[in-house]
Amino acid sequence: AWKGAPQFEGEGGWSFKVRGRLNIDAGFSDYPDSTGRQDGFGSEMRRARLGVQGEIPGGFGYKVEADFAGGDAEMADAYVSYEDGGLELVVGHQNNFQSLEELTSSLNTSFIERAAFTDAFNFERRLGVSAQYKTGDFLVQGGAFSDNMNDLPSRDFSVDGRVVYMPKLGNTQLHFGGSVHYAKLVEDGSTVRYRQRPFEHFTGERFINTGSFGADSERGLGLESAVIAGPFHAAGEAYWQKVSRSGFADPTFFGGYVEMGYFLTQGDSRGYKNGKFDRVKPTHPVGKGGIGAIQVNARYDYLDLTDAGIVGGTQNGYEFSVIWTQTAYTRLMLNYARLQYDDAVYPTASGDTSYGANVVAMRAQIDF
Amino acid sequence: AWKGAPQFEGEGGWSFKVRGRLNIDAGFSDYPDSTGRQDGFGSEMRRARLGVQGEIPGGFGYKVEADFAGGDAEMADAYVSYEDGGLELVVGHQNNFQSLEELTSSLNTSFIERAAFTDAFNFERRLGVSAQYKTGDFLVQGGAFSDNMNDLPSRDFSVDGRVVYMPKLGNTQLHFGGSVHYAKLVEDGSTVRYRQRPFEHFTGERFINTGSFGADSERGLGLESAVIAGPFHAAGEAYWQKVSRSGFADPTFFGGYVEMGYFLTQGDSRGYKNGKFDRVKPTHPVGKGGIGAIQVNARYDYLDLTDAGIVGGTQNGYEFSVIWTQTAYTRLMLNYARLQYDDAVYPTASGDTSYGANVVAMRAQIDF
Amino acid sequence: AWKGAPQFEGEGGWSFKVRGRLNIDAGFSDYPDSTGRQDGFGSEMRRARLGVQGEIPGGFGYKVEADFAGGDAEMADAYVSYEDGGLELVVGHQNNFQSLEELTSSLNTSFIERAAFTDAFNFERRLGVSAQYKTGDFLVQGGAFSDNMNDLPSRDFSVDGRVVYMPKLGNTQLHFGGSVHYAKLVEDGSTVRYRQRPFEHFTGERFINTGSFGADSERGLGLESAVIAGPFHAAGEAYWQKVSRSGFADPTFFGGYVEMGYFLTQGDSRGYKNGKFDRVKPTHPVGKGGIGAIQVNARYDYLDLTDAGIVGGTQNGYEFSVIWTQTAYTRLMLNYARLQYDDAVYPTASGDTSYGANVVAMRAQIDF
Repeated sequence: AWKGAPQFEGEGGWSFKVRGRLNIDAGFSDYPDSTGRQDGFGSEMRRARLGVQGEIPGGFGYKVEADFAGGDAEMADAYVSYEDGGLELVVGHQNNFQSLEELTSSLNTSFIERAAFTDAFNFERRLGVSAQYKTGDFLVQGGAFSDNMNDLPSRDFSVDGRVVYMPKLGNTQLHFGGSVHYAKLVEDGSTVRYRQRPFEHFTGERFINTGSFGADSERGLGLESAVIAGPFHAAGEAYWQKVSRSGFADPTFFGGYVEMGYFLTQGDSRGYKNGKFDRVKPTHPVGKGGIGAIQVNARYDYLDLTDAGIVGGTQNGYEFSVIWTQTAYTRLMLNYARLQYDDAVYPTASGDTSYGANVVAMRAQIDF
Repeated sequence: AWKGAPQFEGEGGWSFKVRGRLNIDAGFSDYPDSTGRQDGFGSEMRRARLGVQGEIPGGFGYKVEADFAGGDAEMADAYVSYEDGGLELVVGHQNNFQSLEELTSSLNTSFIERAAFTDAFNFERRLGVSAQYKTGDFLVQGGAFSDNMNDLPSRDFSVDGRVVYMPKLGNTQLHFGGSVHYAKLVEDGSTVRYRQRPFEHFTGERFINTGSFGADSERGLGLESAVIAGPFHAAGEAYWQKVSRSGFADPTFFGGYVEMGYFLTQGDSRGYKNGKFDRVKPTHPVGKGGIGAIQVNARYDYLDLTDAGIVGGTQNGYEFSVIWTQTAYTRLMLNYARLQYDDAVYPTASGDTSYGANVVAMRAQIDF
Repeated sequence: AWKGAPQFEGEGGWSFKVRGRLNIDAGFSDYPDSTGRQDGFGSEMRRARLGVQGEIPGGFGYKVEADFAGGDAEMADAYVSYEDGGLELVVGHQNNFQSLEELTSSLNTSFIERAAFTDAFNFERRLGVSAQYKTGDFLVQGGAFSDNMNDLPSRDFSVDGRVVYMPKLGNTQLHFGGSVHYAKLVEDGSTVRYRQRPFEHFTGERFINTGSFGADSERGLGLESAVIAGPFHAAGEAYWQKVSRSGFADPTFFGGYVEMGYFLTQGDSRGYKNGKFDRVKPTHPVGKGGIGAIQVNARYDYLDLTDAGIVGGTQNGYEFSVIWTQTAYTRLMLNYARLQYDDAVYPTASGDTSYGANVVAMRAQIDF
């Protein structure tokens, strides 16, 4: 079978497939001049991944994928799994059940960059053990994790849980979910820092940023909802990140988004599977007489990093995207974002910290 | 053919296979409090390798494998080979014939970490040329090497040789071997350092450590023996590492181990091939009505890094492992070690340098 | 189909192939003693690449390859392509159309290291977009690029173009080409540095070197010619690199080479395809009763890094190679070079900056 690349299958339950992806980005940004921040043209290889996945008779599976985009190699998924009926156990480097937006593969998101809170609150893969149980329209996920492979050795740990209810009403897919996150920062002098780039990843400028501050633990609470109805979809999430500090008040930061999208091409729809958005498979792809799928999306993307005496700033983002999915394994994306900041960390010459930024971003994508 | 992943074969002698492995580790350590060393829980991706191997008509072959566990990419095997009858020539990054324990793949060892002397004496892959000749029960190996790819450019070089006699008496596999190592440290101001972690790799603490000292050359001598008889196996090695210094006495450090193991599951046995332990293939694997192979092992692991005025300390390690090999390509390991140190480099509050450490370690493993 | 490794093909235009290469080098160098430069034996893994390439129905394709030789992972080709008739569009990390010698794969060059000007003038892959159009004997290529992935983020950019006329007269392949390069160095305080190693890559010594100097932009002009007539081939290139500086005269540096080669084995010839030298496929390979292809080559390799007050030195290189291509996917190379320097940057004890260096280099190569 071809899934971008050949998937080999052997007797008794063997399978093997090479996998990978390229996200090639470029864009323009326009920041207020007197903040002294560098804007203009930028480009980067956002992701360049190569890996494999496979199954071994007896219910075992694995996935190993490295990302070469940063000029070195950084591990993405790298885990061993065991499946039995609706139960799946996973040991290794994996996502820890925070947010529909984070769990949806970067291949299948509606915008070039995910909603601001996901990076800001440091959602990332961690080394750990997890279990997932699926029964009918319910999905329950939980795990215990140490840290991202790049941050190990560390004695920090987290526990995470997520529940999803995903009924299908006729042809309408609904999604309701909630997740909790608790991270204990064990090392002496532990700090956290929440911050976010202005929509493009290839800039190093961050207008909202709590700076590093001492922390004992993090508690996160997320709510998720989504609907897919033919060419239309909507999704919204809210996420509260609370930090426990010694000798100071405990701040709670908040982020969330609401997005809507529509396919202009007939018969196309967003994919959905196992509590996540899945691949768009154009009804009439390029190469089979069609032009692929064309989708337009709009998102309101909010992030508030100011609380309890920490003034990290607030973002109100207004974001628009056009996605041209020529085939199930290729797409081009064009995004525009208007970001409105309050209490931004870089004042203008006149001392103003409330201002806007404009960003145009493009991506060419292929996966296999 | 499936060997964890599909092995493709073409006319005339072509072959190609993708290969890789995951070693996912966690554990607990308990060191004497007053040494001030960090203990407790730890975890890491010990190995995350992806690579390929293949053959080209005419007797040529290759293997290329990178390890992504350290947060970047480090080359493991990366060589070109040529075979003709019992003769094999290898050019590239490869192991240099030091010790049965070192040459046995990390997939197939009896314990999560190899015997202490192998890391302590810096056994590692090196760039070089080697030849191997096998005839009947005899194996002769030799090569000339520069250095590990991470330490190049360097003008240091080594020559290594190993002979193995591996008769099979009925169903009993015997193994007797010996190896010699000579390394010339050409660069001015060359130093060596021999040290070892307390059984777990994810700690940075090392209680025995010669520290760096000036050296002109290294000479190593190793003796190997092993036996596999049905469910039972035993192995023992002794290794002397002598260092030539200018203007100081030449120290000789020593390490070795004795291990024994037994399969509790009927019909199972350790694999052996070409002078190395090989893969365990459970007689009744999970997924075919069985529970896989269960093996228990015990090892006495000795390392003496004190000689000729250098006081690096001594380790007496008592190590136990249970290995559950569900299928030929997956396994779970649980290890316990009691390490007894003398002349340890970190004294306790009372100035004591003779004390013990307790370590529990776990591993989930998959390969293909 | 086997092309070193299996190439899988699926219905409708799918294809997929794993690819990679090993270049394992060693050699000796002899530099004038009193320059204090380190010579003698050296070795390195020059290239250790793993990657994939594939096609997706509709005209799409991709190539992703990482190089692990440097002890980490560095991206080589990493791009998405679209083909329609003679037109090919490429987005991603790719070579930017500078020089026949640079564009010819390192698998297929006549010498272990390319002609001196290609590295000296910093020809390298860059992130960008390009188009190529081929019609009959003409090839037109052009693109706009930012920078090498290792140098991003950067706002520097370049535009490049190349035209090739490649008629075949009977059995004789001719090649005439020209390329232009313009790079704008946007960042404040931008500098360039042109320098070159003495033929071997594993040394860090560079006898000719402009040092870093401030620059606003680079302009390059290259001329190419080549001929393949049965066992004989010749090639020659000339390249002018002009640098615009603020407040100083603009230097123009120059490099070029003339090479000739001849196959001693009957029926063998250099490959040529799409404006580049291609793979040698021995008529009588090892493994099919032959000894492979044996080729001898000579090259005069000139580089002048002195102009407009910048004294980087001049190289006259006389280089000889023997290449034994056992099969289409393996080869051994032996090279000798006599390099004659003027205005070298390292004077001898007597203050002389005109002297020679001798270099012997070997390579074992495999690819798939």
